[in-house]
Amino acid sequence: MTRILYDLSGIDEGLRFSPFCWRAKFALAHKGLEVETRPWRFTEKERIAFSGQDKVPVLVDGDEVVSDSYAIFQYLDRAYPRQPLLGDATSEARARFFKHYAERALAPSIMRTIVMDLFNAIHPQDQAYFRESREARFKRTLEEMHSPAQGLSQLDHALAPLRGRLEEADFIDGDAPSAADYLVFGNFMWARIVSTADLVSNADPVYGWIERMLDLYDGLGRKAMRITDIQGAYR
Amino acid sequence: MTRILYDLSGIDEGLRFSPFCWRAKFALAHKGLEVETRPWRFTEKERIAFSGQDKVPVLVDGDEVVSDSYAIFQYLDRAYPRQPLLGDATSEARARFFKHYAERALAPSIMRTIVMDLFNAIHPQDQAYFRESREARFKRTLEEMHSPAQGLSQLDHALAPLRGRLEEADFIDGDAPSAADYLVFGNFMWARIVSTADLVSNADPVYGWIERMLDLYDGLGRKAMRITDIQGAYR
Repeated sequence: MTRILYDLSGIDEGLRFSPFCWRAKFALAHKGLEVETRPWRFTEKERIAFSGQDKVPVLVDGDEVVSDSYAIFQYLDRAYPRQPLLGDATSEARARFFKHYAERALAPSIMRTIVMDLFNAIHPQDQAYFRESREARFKRTLEEMHSPAQGLSQLDHALAPLRGRLEEADFIDGDAPSAADYLVFGNFMWARIVSTADLVSNADPVYGWIERMLDLYDGLGRKAMRITDIQGAYR
Repeated sequence: MTRILYDLSGIDEGLRFSPFCWRAKFALAHKGLEVETRPWRFTEKERIAFSGQDKVPVLVDGDEVVSDSYAIFQYLDRAYPRQPLLGDATSEARARFFKHYAERALAPSIMRTIVMDLFNAIHPQDQAYFRESREARFKRTLEEMHSPAQGLSQLDHALAPLRGRLEEADFIDGDAPSAADYLVFGNFMWARIVSTADLVSNADPVYGWIERMLDLYDGLGRKAMRITDIQGAYR
């Protein structure tokens, strides 16, 4: 039985930048589970229609099909209880906050910083879809969203509580990483894969945490292909 | 044996506005523990010198003396394990984030909104101390800090993840409140006691949560004296 994860890819099949797919890949690694990732592009909706929806990540684990990164965490804890990701009811309630923190506090400011890099990393056949869907969602053009100075300033504010936490512990979840770390770190993988922007200074406690996260699971994050690995792609 | 909490008071002995003391009062109520609160003012350092430091809350529980709101949560979970506040190691690691979220994301924006109301609520004998210590900490005068429009705009951004969480659950910690709720709610009690500023619109999921928090423990928060209860004090 092969375990399969449909994983968003960009201008190159090996360029995997989805923050949600990165959450799933770290969660699988946390459980020590092997997975075959299949490259998938935004416009290949029919290829994942079997999942009953149209977004990745989609995990196929034997007879089980699970989409949505948070639902994948819940599924993995049910199917593979050892090394819990979300934990008991209170732990899980608190973990949920990090999903919102990542999506509503960090992602918008990172988006403003890297949006044109992101667009540049997307497969040409997906670019029209990406532009249309994101411009509708954010009610402005990609070019209007693009504002790295403002994005970095917003990010600096949004990182204040994370910085507080990482001044006192190596990982959000304590001595070892778990769900809260992966939920948040997906955003940093997203930026790292498509952009060379320095989101945090190397004196920031968040910087040290990013480095530790990149080292996990035999360098899962650090070894991932970046846009700068593709000759002539970064501009 | 009487359990005693030293609790910051203002222009009236009954006006109790410290966000950290509110955390402790909710934590004690969560455990179903009676407590006698003793009014204390910023400049009465010698009255709590027995605690080995100079800030409230200070809890005296039999032979135990505990200061710092978070340490009080930890103490209460050790001494009274039923109805845990912080929970197991992972739960506690995640709870810590809410301390930083309250102090570094919410408090600064609320401070900008209510600082002059807060100053007005402080006992005249404490005002010089308050001004001096806060102006040194924030490196600007109270009058320069005062910027309600900017404060409310910052708060609106900072509340985004909390809003996401409260769209899906009644409390941060799920169906019932616990440590994460109290850590954050202290800030809203702080503002409520000294100010009439509307921090969130009544269409905001955060508003409904504030109302639910005010109702807890027989209206512990809702019944607390506000500056507007003191004739002629609010201006």
